[in-house]
This record gives sequence, C-alpha cells and structure tokens, in this order.
Amino acid sequence: MRRVLIVNGPNLNLLGEREPGLYGGTSLADVEVRCQALGAELGLEVSCFQSNHEGALIDRVQAARATEDALIVNAGGYSHSSIALADALRAFDGRIVEVHVTNIHRREPFRHHSHMAPVADAVICGCGVLGYELALRFLAADSPT
Amino acid sequence: MRRVLIVNGPNLNLLGEREPGLYGGTSLADVEVRCQALGAELGLEVSCFQSNHEGALIDRVQAARATEDALIVNAGGYSHSSIALADALRAFDGRIVEVHVTNIHRREPFRHHSHMAPVADAVICGCGVLGYELALRFLAADSPT
Amino acid sequence: MRRVLIVNGPNLNLLGEREPGLYGGTSLADVEVRCQALGAELGLEVSCFQSNHEGALIDRVQAARATEDALIVNAGGYSHSSIALADALRAFDGRIVEVHVTNIHRREPFRHHSHMAPVADAVICGCGVLGYELALRFLAADSPT
Amino acid sequence: MRRVLIVNGPNLNLLGEREPGLYGGTSLADVEVRCQALGAELGLEVSCFQSNHEGALIDRVQAARATEDALIVNAGGYSHSSIALADALRAFDGRIVEVHVTNIHRREPFRHHSHMAPVADAVICGCGVLGYELALRFLAADSPT
Amino acid sequence: MRRVLIVNGPNLNLLGEREPGLYGGTSLADVEVRCQALGAELGLEVSCFQSNHEGALIDRVQAARATEDALIVNAGGYSHSSIALADALRAFDGRIVEVHVTNIHRREPFRHHSHMAPVADAVICGCGVLGYELALRFLAADSPT
Amino acid sequence: MRRVLIVNGPNLNLLGEREPGLYGGTSLADVEVRCQALGAELGLEVSCFQSNHEGALIDRVQAARATEDALIVNAGGYSHSSIALADALRAFDGRIVEVHVTNIHRREPFRHHSHMAPVADAVICGCGVLGYELALRFLAADSPT
Amino acid sequence: MRRVLIVNGPNLNLLGEREPGLYGGTSLADVEVRCQALGAELGLEVSCFQSNHEGALIDRVQAARATEDALIVNAGGYSHSSIALADALRAFDGRIVEVHVTNIHRREPFRHHSHMAPVADAVICGCGVLGYELALRFLAADSPT
Amino acid sequence: MRRVLIVNGPNLNLLGEREPGLYGGTSLADVEVRCQALGAELGLEVSCFQSNHEGALIDRVQAARATEDALIVNAGGYSHSSIALADALRAFDGRIVEVHVTNIHRREPFRHHSHMAPVADAVICGCGVLGYELALRFLAADSPT
Amino acid sequence: MRRVLIVNGPNLNLLGEREPGLYGGTSLADVEVRCQALGAELGLEVSCFQSNHEGALIDRVQAARATEDALIVNAGGYSHSSIALADALRAFDGRIVEVHVTNIHRREPFRHHSHMAPVADAVICGCGVLGYELALRFLAADSPT
Amino acid sequence: MRRVLIVNGPNLNLLGEREPGLYGGTSLADVEVRCQALGAELGLEVSCFQSNHEGALIDRVQAARATEDALIVNAGGYSHSSIALADALRAFDGRIVEVHVTNIHRREPFRHHSHMAPVADAVICGCGVLGYELALRFLAADSPT
Amino acid sequence: MRRVLIVNGPNLNLLGEREPGLYGGTSLADVEVRCQALGAELGLEVSCFQSNHEGALIDRVQAARATEDALIVNAGGYSHSSIALADALRAFDGRIVEVHVTNIHRREPFRHHSHMAPVADAVICGCGVLGYELALRFLAADSPT
Amino acid sequence: MRRVLIVNGPNLNLLGEREPGLYGGTSLADVEVRCQALGAELGLEVSCFQSNHEGALIDRVQAARATEDALIVNAGGYSHSSIALADALRAFDGRIVEVHVTNIHRREPFRHHSHMAPVADAVICGCGVLGYELALRFLAADSPT
Repeated sequence: MRRVLIVNGPNLNLLGEREPGLYGGTSLADVEVRCQALGAELGLEVSCFQSNHEGALIDRVQAARATEDALIVNAGGYSHSSIALADALRAFDGRIVEVHVTNIHRREPFRHHSHMAPVADAVICGCGVLGYELALRFLAADSPT
Repeated sequence: MRRVLIVNGPNLNLLGEREPGLYGGTSLADVEVRCQALGAELGLEVSCFQSNHEGALIDRVQAARATEDALIVNAGGYSHSSIALADALRAFDGRIVEVHVTNIHRREPFRHHSHMAPVADAVICGCGVLGYELALRFLAADSPT
Repeated sequence: MRRVLIVNGPNLNLLGEREPGLYGGTSLADVEVRCQALGAELGLEVSCFQSNHEGALIDRVQAARATEDALIVNAGGYSHSSIALADALRAFDGRIVEVHVTNIHRREPFRHHSHMAPVADAVICGCGVLGYELALRFLAADSPT
Repeated sequence: MRRVLIVNGPNLNLLGEREPGLYGGTSLADVEVRCQALGAELGLEVSCFQSNHEGALIDRVQAARATEDALIVNAGGYSHSSIALADALRAFDGRIVEVHVTNIHRREPFRHHSHMAPVADAVICGCGVLGYELALRFLAADSPT
Repeated sequence: MRRVLIVNGPNLNLLGEREPGLYGGTSLADVEVRCQALGAELGLEVSCFQSNHEGALIDRVQAARATEDALIVNAGGYSHSSIALADALRAFDGRIVEVHVTNIHRREPFRHHSHMAPVADAVICGCGVLGYELALRFLAADSPT
Repeated sequence: MRRVLIVNGPNLNLLGEREPGLYGGTSLADVEVRCQALGAELGLEVSCFQSNHEGALIDRVQAARATEDALIVNAGGYSHSSIALADALRAFDGRIVEVHVTNIHRREPFRHHSHMAPVADAVICGCGVLGYELALRFLAADSPT
Repeated sequence: MRRVLIVNGPNLNLLGEREPGLYGGTSLADVEVRCQALGAELGLEVSCFQSNHEGALIDRVQAARATEDALIVNAGGYSHSSIALADALRAFDGRIVEVHVTNIHRREPFRHHSHMAPVADAVICGCGVLGYELALRFLAADSPT
Repeated sequence: MRRVLIVNGPNLNLLGEREPGLYGGTSLADVEVRCQALGAELGLEVSCFQSNHEGALIDRVQAARATEDALIVNAGGYSHSSIALADALRAFDGRIVEVHVTNIHRREPFRHHSHMAPVADAVICGCGVLGYELALRFLAADSPT
Repeated sequence: MRRVLIVNGPNLNLLGEREPGLYGGTSLADVEVRCQALGAELGLEVSCFQSNHEGALIDRVQAARATEDALIVNAGGYSHSSIALADALRAFDGRIVEVHVTNIHRREPFRHHSHMAPVADAVICGCGVLGYELALRFLAADSPT
Repeated sequence: MRRVLIVNGPNLNLLGEREPGLYGGTSLADVEVRCQALGAELGLEVSCFQSNHEGALIDRVQAARATEDALIVNAGGYSHSSIALADALRAFDGRIVEVHVTNIHRREPFRHHSHMAPVADAVICGCGVLGYELALRFLAADSPT
Repeated sequence: MRRVLIVNGPNLNLLGEREPGLYGGTSLADVEVRCQALGAELGLEVSCFQSNHEGALIDRVQAARATEDALIVNAGGYSHSSIALADALRAFDGRIVEVHVTNIHRREPFRHHSHMAPVADAVICGCGVLGYELALRFLAADSPT
Repeated sequence: MRRVLIVNGPNLNLLGEREPGLYGGTSLADVEVRCQALGAELGLEVSCFQSNHEGALIDRVQAARATEDALIVNAGGYSHSSIALADALRAFDGRIVEVHVTNIHRREPFRHHSHMAPVADAVICGCGVLGYELALRFLAADSPT
C-alpha cells in the first residue's frame, strides 16, 4: 500500500475562514478527512501535515524520504519564494503533485511562478479543495517509471 | 445532463506517436473513447474536437456557446501565443478547464506561460492523458456559481 | 470611385453578443450595412470580410492588392501576435486604417501593442463601432501622397 | 449644447511650420477655426487652448471641470511623460478623446506609450489635423453612459 | 533517392512581386522549378508546398513524417510567432534546414528571433532565393547521424 | 523657532473635491489651517505653497534655502517624473519629509517609484491628510545631525 | 478600547546595538515601553511581538485576528521576500500600518520594494523609532470605514 | 556674425552655490560674462537664458528659430525627462551643442540618458563650466553643412 | 585563539545522501569532524550549526556576535532568497566566508545570485566539502584589518 | 577573377580536434584546401587567415579593403562581443558572408546574437564545415548591386 | 610641462578614409600633427598611439602611468565592450578625457554606453576631430585637484 | 607529478601597485614564487603566464592542452566579456579553478558575472592573493573523475 503525505504551507490552516469567496468554505480538517477516506478507497495511506514555518515544512519533507512514497504539496506563499523547500522536494525520490486551491494564473503576477512546479510531476490548480482528491487519483492511477 | 466539449489543438492528433517518453503511448482516439466512457459514468455528455488550425479552434469554441456547458481545452502550441483563441474562450459562459499532458513548467521557458490559463477556471498539467479524466471529474463535482 | 475593404478578425463576428458593456450592442452585420451606406454617401465602394482564420485574413488582404484601394483593419486578437498578417498589410500599396472598437490602452497590457499599428497610416480606437465610420471619413478626406 | 475644449500641448503652436512632411501644412489657428465651424454644425460649442507649459495645461484642464463637457487632448511631448497632466484628466468627469496628428506607433519607441491613453475614452492618431474633426464627430455621436 | 519537401509560409507566394528590392524579382514558381532541377541533379526528389495558413503548414509538415526525408522551411512571418509549427517540426525525424530570403538580422528586431531556428539543423539567410538551392546542396552532402 | 514649508504639487488644490473616496473630503485650505495650528503648538512656523507648475515648485524650493529650515513635500504626479524638482530638494540643506495622502504602493505601478523618496529623510504615505500633521510631529521631535 | 499589536521581524531585536548611525541608539525594549505609554494616552492597548522566525510571525499575525484590532508591522528583511507573511496580513481584517526605521528608498535597490506595502493601509519610513509612535497616532485618529 | 543662445535649465541658477565640490564655485552670471567675452573674440554674438520652467525653456527655444543661429543647451534635470523640450530643439534648424558641467556618466543611472543628446550635434560633459566655452569654440570652428 | 562558527543551512544535513554525484558522498558530521581537526591544527576553535529554519539560522548568527570571531556560511537555498539572514550577517563584526559545495554558476540561473555574497569577505564554491577547509585556511592566514 | 578572404577567429584553429561531435572531424587546414579547390572551380581566388587575436583579425580585415573583393567570416567567440571587429567589417566595401560551423541558435543564449550578422550580407550556420563552401557558391553566383 | 598621451583604438587608423560623411575627411596623421601643434601652444607635450589590439592599448596605458600626466582616449569599438581597458584607465592617476569623433548618442543603441565614460573626467563627442583639440584645451585649463 | 598553469589576465601585472587597499600589496612575481613553492610541497609543477592580450591568453590556454593537467585562471577584466577565452577553456580537458583576488560580488554589477565561472570546476574570490594557494590545495586534494 502506497503512503502519501499531504503537505500544506502557510495560511492554509485558515482554509474555510479566510476569503471563502476565493478559497471556499471547507476547513483544512475536513479536507484531510475527505482525502484519507478517498485514499483508503484508492489503496493509499494518507498522512497530513500543515505548518506556517518554512523550516518545519523542510524537516517534514526530509523525513518523508523514509516514510512516504508520494507527496501532495501546497506550499502556499512559500511556493513563490522558497528555493530551500523546492530543494527538499528535489531530494525526495517519489512522485510529487503540486496543488493550489485557486487558479494562481488569474491572480497577482507574483503568484504566477512557483518554485515547486518544475520539481513536481504534475500541477493541479483552481479546482478548489477537490484538487487534493484529484491529486490522489493521479497518484493511485500512476505507475512510476 | 451537462455537455462537455474537449478541444485539442495543434499536434495533439499525434498523441501516442510523437515523443512517447514525454507524451505517453496512448492515442488521441483512445483518450477520447475513455473520456466519453467516464463522462457517461459521471452524467456528462462528452464531445471531442481536434484541429491544427487556430481559426478552426476559434470557430468551434464559438459554436460551443450554443451547444455545450463546459470546455476542456488543451491548446497545444497555441496556448503560448494565441490571444485570439483566449478571447474566444472569454466569450464562453460555462466552466473551462485547461489541460496539458506534460508538466509545462519543467520544459522550455516559452511554454511556461499560457494565454488560456487566466481565462480558465482550473489548470491541470503533467498528469499525462489522465488529466482529461481529472478535468471531467472536476466538472462533474463542481456546481457553478 | 475608391474601393475600401473592411477586414475584421477573430471574434468580431460576435459583435453585439459578446460583452456588450465593452463592445456595444450593435452586430457586425449592422456595422457593415452602416459603413456601406456612409461609403456610398462619401463616394467609396465598401466591401466587408470577417474571418477567425489568420490565413484567410492574409489571403483576403493579398487579394485586395488587385481589387481595393484602401483597407480598414480590425485584426482582433491577431493584432497583438500576427507578424504574418502585418507583412501582408506591408505588401498592400494603398492607405490602411487600424480600428479597435474598445480603447486597447485601457485594457490588459498584452493588448497595448499592435503589430498592425506601425504598418497602418492611422489608428482609431475606443470610438466603439463608430470607429469604422470615422475611418471611412478619413479615407474619403485623405488624398494619398 | 455641449461644450468641448480642445487642448494642445507643447510645440503644437508650430503646426504648419515644423516638419510639414510629418505634421502637414495647416496652422493651429486654421485647425481651430475649422473645428469651431464643424462644432457649430454638430451642435458643439468649441473652445481652444494651447500652451507649452505643463502647469498651464493642468490649470486649464482643472478649470474645464466647471466649464466644459468634453475634452480633446493632444498633449504633444507631455503625452509620454506627464503623470501630472494625466491626473488632471482623471479628475475631469466628461468624455476625453486623445488626438495625435501623426501615427505615433510608426515613430521612435519613446512615443509609443502615452500616459493620456488609458485616461481617455478614445484615441485617434495618424489622421493628420483631420483627427480633431473626427474626435468632434465622435463626441457629437456619443451619448455618455 | 531522398525526398525533400520545401515548405514556404505566409506571403512567400508574393515572391518577385512584393518589395523586389528586398526579396528579389524571382517568383516562387520559378524558385520551385529551379530547386526541382537542382534536386534531380543532386539525387533528391523535391516537392513544394506554400500556404498562408498556419494550420495547413502544420498539417503538411505532419504528413511529411510519412512521405519525406528532409525539410527546407521558410515559415515567413510565422517564424517569429509559431510555437505550434515548431512543434510540428520537432515531431519530424529527418533533417531540417531553415531558409530566409533576406538577412533577418539586418531587419526589425522582431524578426531576429525564429522559433524554427533551434529546431532546424541549419539556418541559411540573406542569400536571396539561392538560399533554397544551398539548402539542397547541404542536404545532398550531409549524411545524417 | 524652526520654519517649515509645506509644498504641494499638481492637482492637490483639488483635495476634497477629486475622488473623495481615495483622497478624503478635506480641502487643501483646511489641511493648511490645521497644520499651522499644530505647528504653532509644536513650536514650528508653518508656511504653505501649492502649484501645478513644476518650475514654480522648483523656484519656491530654491527660495526656501534662505527662508525655511525644513520641507514637507507632496509632489503629486511630479513625484514620479521630476528629476529637476528632486535636484532642487537636493540643494536644500534642512530636513525633508515626503508625504502622500494615499498609499501609493496600492495603486498603479507607475506611482510606486518616487524621485523624491531617496532625497527625503522620511516618507509617510497612506495616512490621508493626517500625514502632513505626522510629518510636522517628526520634524518637531527630530534634532538634525 | 482598541487593541494594537506591534510586530517586529528579523534583526529588530538588535535595535540600538546594530549600526546605530543608521538605526539609532534606542533599544527595542525602550521603543515598546514608549509605545505602550503613548498608546495608553491615546486610548489604545498596545501589545508587542518580535521574532526572527517567519513562521512565528505568521502564527502571531493569524492569532491577532481574534485578539487585536490593528497591526503595526516592521517585517525587517522579510518585507522584501515574504509573500507568506503578506498573505497572513491579508487575512487580518483591521487596519495595518507598515513602519521602517530607516528610509528604505535611500538604501540598496532590493530594499525598495516591500510585499507588505500594498497590503498595509499606510506606510511610514525613515522617521527612526518615532515611526512607531506616529503609526499609533494614525490608528488613534483614524476611524475605519 | 553668428548668434548663439546659451540655454540653461532648472537649478543651474544655483551654479557656484550648490554642491561646489561637484559643480565648481563659479556663478552662472560669471559663466555668462565669460562666454560673451569669448564669443566676441570668436565672432559670435552670445545671448543667455535660464529658467526653472520647462515651458519657458520651450518658448525660448521656439523663439530662437527666428533670432539665433546655434544653441548651447544644458537642460539640467529636464535632460533626462523632457521629450517636449527635445521636440522644441528638433524644430530648430541650426547647430545644437549639449553641455553638462559634471560627467553625468559617473553619477546616478537616471542621469546617464539624455533626451537632448540624440537631437544635439555634439555633447560635452564633465569639463566644468569650461564646457560652455569649448562649445563656443566648436560652433566657431564648425561650418555647418 | 580565534573562534569560528560553521553555519549550514537547509538540506545540508542531507550531505552525503542527497545527489552524491553533485554534492559528494561525505556526510555533514564527517565534514564537521574534519573541520574541527584542521581548525585545531591552525589554531582555530571550530563550532558547527545546521538548521533548516531561517529564523534559527538568524538567531545563531546573532548569538555569534558575542561568542565567535569569524563565520563560515553555507546558507543553502536561503542564499538566494534571504535578505533577513544577510542582514544578520551584516550585524556581525568579524570575517565571513561563504562556501558552496557545488559551483553554483554551473547550475540553474536562480542559484547564480547569493544575497550572502556581497556581505561576505570571500566566496569559495565548487571545491566540494574541501571548501570548508579552504575557508578555515583563509581565516587562519588572514589578519583582519 | 574575384578574390575572397576566409577569416577564422579564436579557437577555430582547433577544428577537428575540439568537440568533434559538435564541430566535426575535419581540420581547418583541410577546410582551407577544399575551399581553395572549390574557389578555383568557381572562378574565385581564395585566401585564408586565422587568428586568436581580435586585433590581428581587425588588421587583416582592414588590409582586405585593398586586396580582396569579398569576405567569409567566422569570428568564433568574438562574434558575440566584438563591436570593433564588426566596425572593421563595416569599413569593407565588398560582400560579406558570416559562417558558423554549428547552429548557434541551438546553443547557449549568449551565442544567439552575433555583432557580425547585421553587417554581413548573408549568414549560414549549422551546415558544418560545408558552410564555407556554400558561402563560396553564394559569392560566385551573386552579382553585387 | 605636462605630458599628454592621445590613445586611439580600433579602426581610428582609417580616419579620413572610412565613411567620411560620418567621420570627416581628415586623416589620423593630420589630427595628431594638429594636436601636437596646439599642445605646444598650450604648454602640453603631446604623444600619440593607435592600435587595433586591445592588449596593446592596455600595455600603452599602463606604461603611461610612468611617462604621462594626462590621457585623451578614443577607444573606438572597445569603448562599448572593454572592461579590461577601462580597468587600465582606472589604474592611471592623472586626468582622462574621452573623445568620440561622432555623436554616439545619435547612432546604434550598442554605441550609447561606454565603459570608459565613468572612468574619464570628461567626455566630448560629436565635435568631429576638433574634439581632440577641445580635450587638450580642457587639460591645459584644468588644474587637477 | 601533475602540472598546473596559473594564467593571469589584463592588469594583474600591476598587482601590488594598483589600488593596494583593494588588491593588496604583494606583487605578481611574489605570488608566483609562493605558488611554485607551495606547488612543490604539494607535488604540483607550477608554471605561470600573464598577458594583457586576450589572444595571447587564448594561445597559451590552447598550448596547455598538451603541456598541463590543470589551470588556475584569473582573467581580470576579460572574465566579464570574453566568450572566446571561455571557449578556449572549454577545449581544455583538465581541472580549472577560477580565482579573483577581490570579492567581485561586492563590486560594480558588471563584475558580478564571469564567463569563466560556468566553465570552471571551482571559483574562489575575495581571499586576496592567498586564493591562488587555496586553488593549488584544491587541485592537489582533488582526484579528477
């Protein structure tokens, strides 16, 4: 059974509270519950981690080298600035899917470029919180090369 | 029952033949069959259109204003240059999902920017041909505002 | 009697339907009728052509070398990307007026530059569909050098 | 009866004298006479103002807030540098048409961008001194929203 | 016997007519006749195709995958804007030579960059219509790796 | 007793009239009265000057070299373009505070850079007309080096 | 009584020690004491927080959503790089004032742009540690809309 | 006898007073006296004009079309921003020499580019106030083509 | 005896594990042991610190102001983004050497610029883990000015 | 009989030795022999010159003004940096063909621009050492205007 | 008696021959004779050096450290590319005047920037070969600080 | 025994004389003597070469292909402009270390980029003349792959 870690970065703990018109009204806890349920259905063991601390995110991604087979990453505001987090992802051998709740290409120019994108295998954005579930489906369907 | 049009642009008729290491070995015909099957399952009526002609793509997107409820668009090389096709999408009232078979952010810089992305509701790239199916799932789950 | 061709590019067939708050509520057919009437009044024989196909626009502009004395061109989205259409205009010996229904300088940055503008003799934008009529008046008044 | 002010900026007092091959041989006084005549015909009361002084232009535009309903502005060389004059236009409630005698897009790159253009409703350039008359026709035809 | 396709893009049907000071006075038909004669001499079977339509050029290049061994491409104005046509060339396995009649590096800056150039094996520009013949000589002499 | 000159540039004479949602509803005359009152309280003699003329602003700043000890400057639209006014400030020996009524960093990109800012000792923006009073407090508290 | 949180970012704990010629000789503790005293006088309850950790700053700003009415933020070096911290500020409903002890526009170019500035209501820089007090005065005087 | 006008722009009235380490200790009046003396020696009738007002400089340059044969221009801070003044120089038929007291290429980047330079025949900078005299020598020696 | 602190940033705890072809096969612990041995030989007391947390790195560098005489810094991915860490280095009075294990100028463009480089006295990159030892030799040989 | 000089710049003396996969296995001496043979056949007298010294290349090109009728130039690495060599070419009255052995548009970005290209009549690149022979054929066929 | 070296760079040995419409018809030998005569008159001992070799120019400038008091430098095409020559000038203690025969600001953009300009004390361009004599006059008049 | 060539470019013959505050007071001859001594100790045979001539540097680097095993290169001002010298280094098979006496990242922006850096294996800058010795230590310790 493949193990998947869902990593959420800064301010994603506010999902459902912050600008619901933009990010939707579902809380992060609910998203995590749904993903674990879907994972179970798809034969994936899903763990979740959120932090506002760049270093904590790097620590957790490094730890995942030993404990998980794939990552789903929404690095929030660090997506656009953190070469260090992208380097931690580079050191991870399994599949990586980047998810953004909103369509970042519709927003401010500084959100258009993600340092995570060229490190990820796939990118899903603008599907709302459903994006995490689509990422799980991709990981379930995908047989790594 | 919602009607969805899958629009594929230039060179996507070569799917499965051209650089299979990059684009995979599934043909466009197979992708379309799979999408229609999944659509049926999800309660979506799926039509498909491919052309290498920018004008033909625009004509078809304009026609979809009367005949379809949502679009899945992979504009291929026109993604990066066609303001005219993006304008046609702007004139479409329903949901739009942009799909790319490869992760365009890992490729040449001129592929990083898509004129379609800010017009689309969601963008899915790098999931291979599975991306079209994920797009259908997003459209099925999504209740437009 | 001078012959004038009005060339309209992609999505201008949707005039009156698409974003009427921006483009106004008059259809392209109505614009063409008005222009032919005004042309008759001003001693100009007015023909009209619209296509969403860049190649068809180039073909028509090339043909105009033999059949028309002046061009009024609204290349729509191709204004900002088509060097090929601008080259076809360069090969036309008569007067050329570029028209845009909206004031493109008030809109997205990618609409501010037109490849047609340095090839045209004059540019009229933001006058709504009246712009075509002002272009005809300019051509009627203008004695070419 | 609507009142229109035609504002001409630096060096336009040399119209007819300076580079007639580029700007034509008609003097500014003649242009103003013609515009007043055409205005009368179209039901517009036309006033004219020219200055080489940026501050004087701003003063006059501010005064027009109380005394005129629409502006026709050719800011000459200030078009490309004066945020202050553009701000004065922003504070004017009526219609604004920007006019340039030459097609600025055919000239040096520093003339391609005008700070007035995004503040104006419409822009007419390259029609020679006829451009002022076309602007009057636009104002006469246009019923403001 | 190796088969070579000469692909000419927009406005090259006007060769000999348009700006002869720049492009020379030989018509495209004459160029094609000469190339077929030289090809015969060099043991190359030469076919020719011209279109103003980007999509038609892509269709023909795709077809050449099955029917030709090498391409000579002058994409005209599409050279500078068409990623889609360059992608079609990328999907072609044989040798590709890009030809321009004029020296594009002496002309407007927007002509200096060609999307075809990094896809082609060789580039010949500024040799007038003789460039097509030099390209044939290169293809005849060259034994592909 | 230290003497302070408040210099206001183009369009600030419209304070309270122009876009009150952005600039507030207080007139410049009221601002000046308040500042003189606060100045008196703080032991500062406050003079005021406003002009739409860049040259007049430069003349007044030059004169202040002999008559004032500190400047508060809101150069309006000249902030972003006038090297000449900034040079006049450079020739002034006392303290300089730049004030903007609005937060220029929230507005159009061309307002983000001020030529006055690197010449000023301090910059206060977005505090509305209160900004002038805060500047006075800074000048009163500050003992120059 | 309105509650105000003063948030200081990296290296501001060195105030008074680090480059006193640039930052002044007052310690952060002294600044905080003064601000609490002035706050009391102005009817504001002032809390203070400093951290060198971006994540800790984000955590504290998020917490302030429930506990404070306004923020004064000097994000130090994070001002120029942290989209994540700016996003946390975006999620805060009350007034925000950005303060910098030095005039960042006089310093290295990489300090000229602050990601916090377009999120803040007002920006005060170059007033030394007095800037915090001026920010409190602005918050006291300001009645939010 | 050829007539030469020396035009000095903003802040040059402070020559000798402002930053003497940079600009030297000679006043503008002294410079003008010296130039008139040297002019007399060289057979040139020298007039002088200084203003801080861009419009006044343009007015005077326009007037010089009728009254002078050559110009020596130091536009001060307007050198780097005034297209309008450069346009006035373009309308002047005689020789034009641009002078700067300092070597502008050693100073801030925004001083490196002068809008006057491509309009002038010659540029002399960094020679201190002697530059004006060298410009006179050039005009005296030069027989216009 | 001079005290030297070796500061390693994010992902350098993976030395020897992550991409050994690029970073070599020696672990960070081994590097630290070697450096302490060489330090002892050279009369330097060597301490070591590694963290993935930007704030922890800043805290430690601040602490070094009291406890160390020189720093060797490899800020990993923070090299390219952290103005805050560079500011902490700026507040350190002793010598600073920046070390990178790989030659960052051979890698992706975003690694070419380091915010630490202009703050450091010397930079050593591409010497593998030997770089730390070379840095120690430089510090031992160097008598600070 | 027309005289042609083939000028080869830095590192081209290593042809056949350096990176044969990129530059081919033919030595420069062999290329020169072949070119002289082909030249004889085409009625051209071919001389050859190679140097790694920019100044020596300029000296030789200047000398060619008196002794040769046309130039074939491969300036190697100086192509991308030497305005001085391009100026020497500008002073040469005859035909100039630029040759590059490799397709420089497929290589590093700093090789894409050549200062020689806008000075040359024609450019041939990517044809390997055959390019020199194609250049001779162009010169033989071409009757200068 | 002060010693002055006039250093001329690549292609200036062609003065009088190359493009006389641009550079004039006087030969370099004549210019040098004139400068020596004027130098004698002004109390300056004038030596001259020209080379097309960057290294030779650097060698000569280095030698001048011991033998000359001032330099007049026209580095020709190296002006725009040679940091090495500019560094040699930086190591020279006396006055340096940069001269260009033409007004480089009227020519191609790559000629607008000179690496010599910020190293020189003064720059004179566009005065034709008279520029060298004006430079001598400046050196004669100037008493170095 | 491995042979190492130390190549020094323009103006490095002035080491110890030119700006000793920046480059130190040791002469190049002394540096070379020290390096040969250290080389002997480390089992390296050290040769030295300095020239101000780019071509001579290229010639010597080419010769080193046959006679040396490793290079230490300080290309001085050519570091930032010479693609030709970098190409010569590319043709060298052994190890290459780039050395700069000063920390080029602390100096003018045009010194930040070196064309040699991506060709070298390692880069050492800012260690003064000790940098050459550190480079020797790296070469001695390093066993090439």
